[in-house]
This record gives sequence, structure tokens and C-alpha cells, in this order.
Amino acid sequence: MASFAIMGFGTVGGGVAEVLRMNAQVIEKKLGEPLTLKYILDVRDLSDTPYADIAVKDFSVLENDPDLDLVVETIGGARVALEFTRRALLAGKHVVTSNKELVASHGKELLAIAKEKNVNYLFEASVGGGIPLLRPLFQCLAGNQIQEIVGILNGTTNYILTRMVQDNVPFADALKEAQAKGYAEANPAADVEGLDAGRKICILSDLAWGGEVRPEDISMRGITGLDLKDVDIAHAAGYRIKLLGRALKLADGRQAAYVSPHLVPETSPIAPVDDVFNAILIRGNAVGDVMFYGRGAGDLPTASAVMGDILDALEHRAKRRDLGWSEPARLIDQEAELPMKWYLRGGEAPAEGQSVGEDAYLVGPMAGREAKALAEQLGAAALLPVLE
Amino acid sequence: MASFAIMGFGTVGGGVAEVLRMNAQVIEKKLGEPLTLKYILDVRDLSDTPYADIAVKDFSVLENDPDLDLVVETIGGARVALEFTRRALLAGKHVVTSNKELVASHGKELLAIAKEKNVNYLFEASVGGGIPLLRPLFQCLAGNQIQEIVGILNGTTNYILTRMVQDNVPFADALKEAQAKGYAEANPAADVEGLDAGRKICILSDLAWGGEVRPEDISMRGITGLDLKDVDIAHAAGYRIKLLGRALKLADGRQAAYVSPHLVPETSPIAPVDDVFNAILIRGNAVGDVMFYGRGAGDLPTASAVMGDILDALEHRAKRRDLGWSEPARLIDQEAELPMKWYLRGGEAPAEGQSVGEDAYLVGPMAGREAKALAEQLGAAALLPVLE
Repeated sequence: MASFAIMGFGTVGGGVAEVLRMNAQVIEKKLGEPLTLKYILDVRDLSDTPYADIAVKDFSVLENDPDLDLVVETIGGARVALEFTRRALLAGKHVVTSNKELVASHGKELLAIAKEKNVNYLFEASVGGGIPLLRPLFQCLAGNQIQEIVGILNGTTNYILTRMVQDNVPFADALKEAQAKGYAEANPAADVEGLDAGRKICILSDLAWGGEVRPEDISMRGITGLDLKDVDIAHAAGYRIKLLGRALKLADGRQAAYVSPHLVPETSPIAPVDDVFNAILIRGNAVGDVMFYGRGAGDLPTASAVMGDILDALEHRAKRRDLGWSEPARLIDQEAELPMKWYLRGGEAPAEGQSVGEDAYLVGPMAGREAKALAEQLGAAALLPVLE
Repeated sequence: MASFAIMGFGTVGGGVAEVLRMNAQVIEKKLGEPLTLKYILDVRDLSDTPYADIAVKDFSVLENDPDLDLVVETIGGARVALEFTRRALLAGKHVVTSNKELVASHGKELLAIAKEKNVNYLFEASVGGGIPLLRPLFQCLAGNQIQEIVGILNGTTNYILTRMVQDNVPFADALKEAQAKGYAEANPAADVEGLDAGRKICILSDLAWGGEVRPEDISMRGITGLDLKDVDIAHAAGYRIKLLGRALKLADGRQAAYVSPHLVPETSPIAPVDDVFNAILIRGNAVGDVMFYGRGAGDLPTASAVMGDILDALEHRAKRRDLGWSEPARLIDQEAELPMKWYLRGGEAPAEGQSVGEDAYLVGPMAGREAKALAEQLGAAALLPVLE
């Protein structure tokens, strides 16, 4: 018999308990033995729930139970979650998490502890909700040199953009709707300013290339400054505007990673991905482009990814998966150096540009530094990168 | 050091050697030791190639080499490939294959031998070319009850349909083009009559539910009978026509699997998937819908999947992956029993139907048996299922 605990009984933690209840038979068959939820650690009182018998408030109960195999961390943030994850790993427990903030900021340290203690620290649920993504990247595409990862990594902003594009709703109103529907937090900054997508592109980048990319080292631009005018012009010219996280490995071994709204050609498989859906395209030198699509958030989808990791960790109790990133990555400043096409609107017409609407032009490819200088020189009101 | 052999040095076999050459560094880093291509078994003379030194013509060299860890089977078909796969597994070698015919027809037997000999028999490359699909289904979604799998599983027919739809090219001409471009075989029957997609949906079904579904037990309808008229009507009514493989598990535990052209609503993520691309949607009771997209064929993409399996098999030398299907599945006759919406064209108008063009109607949901009877009664010229 294998047993695990859930730390943090919110949306995702509750989802994990629910998935175990719904699918106990399938899970036991796959694992070859029963899987027992032994403890739920939460500060709240769970005595009115079906989980009253297994509710605990003291982490040391988990830490000191030699028969407990694994801990699910769905606390969120990087304070208590960091301390409990460290202590769980040091106590020889496998840890599975959906906490992108913690993985992006402390993954390197936590993976090193996991390695030392010969246990697994797995986090498929931290990127793309239930979409299988990290394991395919790390395992199925293991024979590739990964060249680029780009995608819609935040469902909330994609919902807002969909409303802006399809129904001409201004940003502020679309955000209010997203909050009313429970897609956006009361404080939506991490979503709309690109931080959530930024943490996720860092994790993908870390796994793809093994060098650490820290959220504080990459440029993140969200959708708060986006103008409906540009959405309309882009649409008429055969583009959609999407908030993308993007990571590249250049021929010289340096990397780039950033978050920005992009013009995406409507022929791209990313373009039709609307509402709260995520889609992530991975380019490998053997496989070409593959794309992964699904709901990037939600209790049960995210819990599905957690459960996949639980089963994987327990099947690998003897031999842990050797994930990990060690060295810092050699990053370039994407804005300054990466050559891209750019969309410019307002101000004077550029000398060489393709007109895509009233006062709107595509220019380049040119480095972001040049594009910025050009935009200033022309007095442009909008400047956005174009995905090619 | 780990070593492997390639049996059958055609498109995919050659691709595997090429991927190893291109990406040797990445592969060695991932595996933690060098990976050596020790033999290439082929009936052809390879003395003019860079592989002259490792070319062999006698399978027993592989079979009797105690230091050979793994064999890649890219021979194709189910005769020689079957014999050599059996013998390789019995000799304690891991086997990795892209051979969908062999896996669909003899997977059960070969997995049983692999289990007995404690080695891996892996076949990610047999479905969807380089798209990570079987491992995500089996592993990442392990905490789900899989409810449905549906997708574009054959690139050749998708290319033909794309040409028919976008450029109004008749079927016969589009097929000739596909052959000229090397997408379709000289004998294109397995592609255009649905057998290739049928084998793949059987493999997906086997893995998802653990009961064997044999290609000869399911209904397969290809695109040879498709009329441009229906393509046009469907398009105008907001649908695309796609050749889909589809497998379902019903609430009573019985399964359905079949291949047929379908009307796909243009809002479905499958609808915009054109040319030789494949896209497979998997529905789980926790994760909801996830979709996997990419090139479903080609030397390097398929070799990418083979290489992923090689690394996985070698990392699991100690503990084999417990894939497998044992019991025959309880299949229903989809045509007869599965309730679906149907597209009818020609003949009299049905009493209850939604008009979608000249003489064309959507009816149902009703079982295929009823739809067929209705089509006969009305004297309809075309009858196609509709994906909902």
C-alpha cells in the first residue's frame, strides 16, 4: 500500500482528493496497489468535511510518519510552501506540486535536495494545468535539441483577449467579467501583467535546456496596455493578438525568454486557441513543431496532472527521475538583441514597412532595441512583436 | 555504455541513425552514458554508406550478442518483423518500434513476452509519428478515466482532404499529388481506405482501456467515396470534413471504435488542422479535453519518437514499464448502436432535420442502424457522421 498527504486544501488540493475518490479503481490498477490519502494538512477546520478523520494542523505529523511515501504541496506561494517542501524532501518523502511560483523561484534548490535524498520532486501541474507538457518535453522529446518553446500559458488573459477580439469589449470590462466568472483573482496583477506566464516559461526553459532562468531576469509585458484599436487592425490584417511566453535557444548557445503580447498569424495553430484554453508549441530539431492544447487551469484538470505525477513518483520509488537544472543560463536581453518582426502604429510612416491598416505597419526583422528606437523616432503609439 | 541495433534501414530506420548523429551530445547527457549504434540489419548492401562497418545481414548476430541492450524494429509489416521482434524479446533485448501494423495485430502477444522476459516493448512512434501521445495517455493521464479518443491519425488523407476543401481538387487528382509529393504510397489503399487510421485507433484504444481491439473487428470507412459536393456543403454550413479515428468507452463498460469521415464543427480544435498534420483529442473525466498536434509522419519526427522510447527503455532497464492489454474488449457495433448526429444529402427531405444546404440535412442523434435505414428510405446519396 502507498500513502500520501495533501498540504493546502484549496481548489487544487481539493481536486486531488476528488480525483482519487472518482478514479480510485483506475488508479489502483495502474499503481498495482491501493493508494491511500492519509493526511490533509490545512490551517482551516475540516471537521465538517468528509475528511475530518485525516485532517491535521501540524506538519511534523507528516514529517515524522515513516510510512508516508509522498506529499502533495498545493499551498501556493514561496514561504510556508518552501519550508514544508524542504522538510518533506529532507524527511525522504517524494513531493508533487502545482506551485509554479515555488518551482520557478526555488526549483533548483529543491531538486538538489530531492537528488541528495533520492526522492522525486515533480511539478507537471505547475505549467499548463492538466495538459501533459513537462514530461513529454523532458522524456518523449529527449532525443531532440529543443529550439523554441512558445505558447499561451495563462488562461485568464486569453479569456480577456478573446472577449476583446470577438466582442469588442474593452480590457477593463473583460477583466471584470473574468473576475465575475472566477477566472481572475481579486488582485489580477500576476495574470494580466504577465508574471504568471513568465514563471511558467522559466520552468519550461529550465527543463528544456538545464540552465536556470529566473523570473526576475526576464522581460515580462502583460496585456494591461493593450488597445482595442490594435486588436482590430491585427485581426483585419490576418493576425490575432495573444499573450505569449516564449523561450529560445540560439545557435551560439545563449538563451532568450520573455513574455509579451504578440501578433500571431491566423495560420498558426496557436491563433484559434480562445477562452481559457492554453496551447504550447515546442520546436525540436528532429520532431519539428508539436503542440499541446487544453484547459490550463481548474481544480480537476490540475489535479489530473498532480495524480499523474503521484503515480509516476511512486512507480519510481526505487530509481528517481533525474530532472534538474544547475548552472544559470546564459541569457540575452530579448528586447535588445533578438531579431524579430514588429508591429508599429501611430506617428509617422516608417521608411520601409508593410502597411497593415490605418497608420499601422510591420517592420523588420530587427532587434528590439532598434524597433524601440524607431518607434520613438516616429512617435508611434503602439509597438508589438510579431510571431513568425 | 548502452548499445542498440536498427533492424530495417528504410525511412524511419535511417532517421533514427541520423537523429543519433545530430543529437549525440544531448542524448548522452540525458542517458548519463554514451549510446552506441552497434549494428544495422538490412537485406540491402550498405557498403557504400557510412554504416558499412556495422552492417549485418544475419539476425542471429544481434540475438546472440549478450552486450546488445536494445533493438529498434523499423522493418514494417507483420512477417519478418514479427519473427525478429519475438526472438529479440526472448533473447532479453528491449525492443522499440514504429510498426503500427505489428503492434495493432500482435501487440498483446509481444507485450506478454516482454513482461515474461522483464524487458520493454515500446511503440510511441507507431501512432502520430513524433507527437508525444502514447506516453502522455498512459502516464500523465493515468489518474483519469479516459472517455473518448478522437483525431486525425493519417496525414496522407488529411493532405488530400485539405486540397479538396481549399482548392476544390477532386479526390483522384489530390491523391495523385500526394503520391507525387511522396506522402502516399504507390498503393495508397491502407491510407485512403482507413486501415492505417484504424490500426492506430486500435492501439490507442488498447492502451487507454487495457482490452484488445483488433483492426479486423472495427468498421473502417476511408475517403475514397467522398464527394466534393458534400465537402462544399459542409464548409458553407460551418463544418470541415475530416477522416477521424474514434474510440469511446460507454457508461456500461462497453467500447466502440471506428474510422470514418466526419463533419467536424469549425469551432472544434481539430477543424483547422490541415495538410499532413495530425491532431488527437483525448477526453478524461478529470482533465477534460486535451489535444496533441504535430507531423504524424516523416523520417526525423518518427525517429524522434523512437529515440524517446530508446532512452526511456534504457533508463528502465531495471524496472520495466508495465504496459499491456490482455482481455478482448467488449465492443459494440458503432454503426448499429452508437447514437450520433448524421449528415444526409440527396433523396427526399427527412421529416425532422436541420437543413444545411441544397438537399442536405442534419438528423439525429440516432443510432447508425437507424440513420442507414432512414438514408435508404429517403434515397439519400450521402450519409456521414457528425462530431459533436
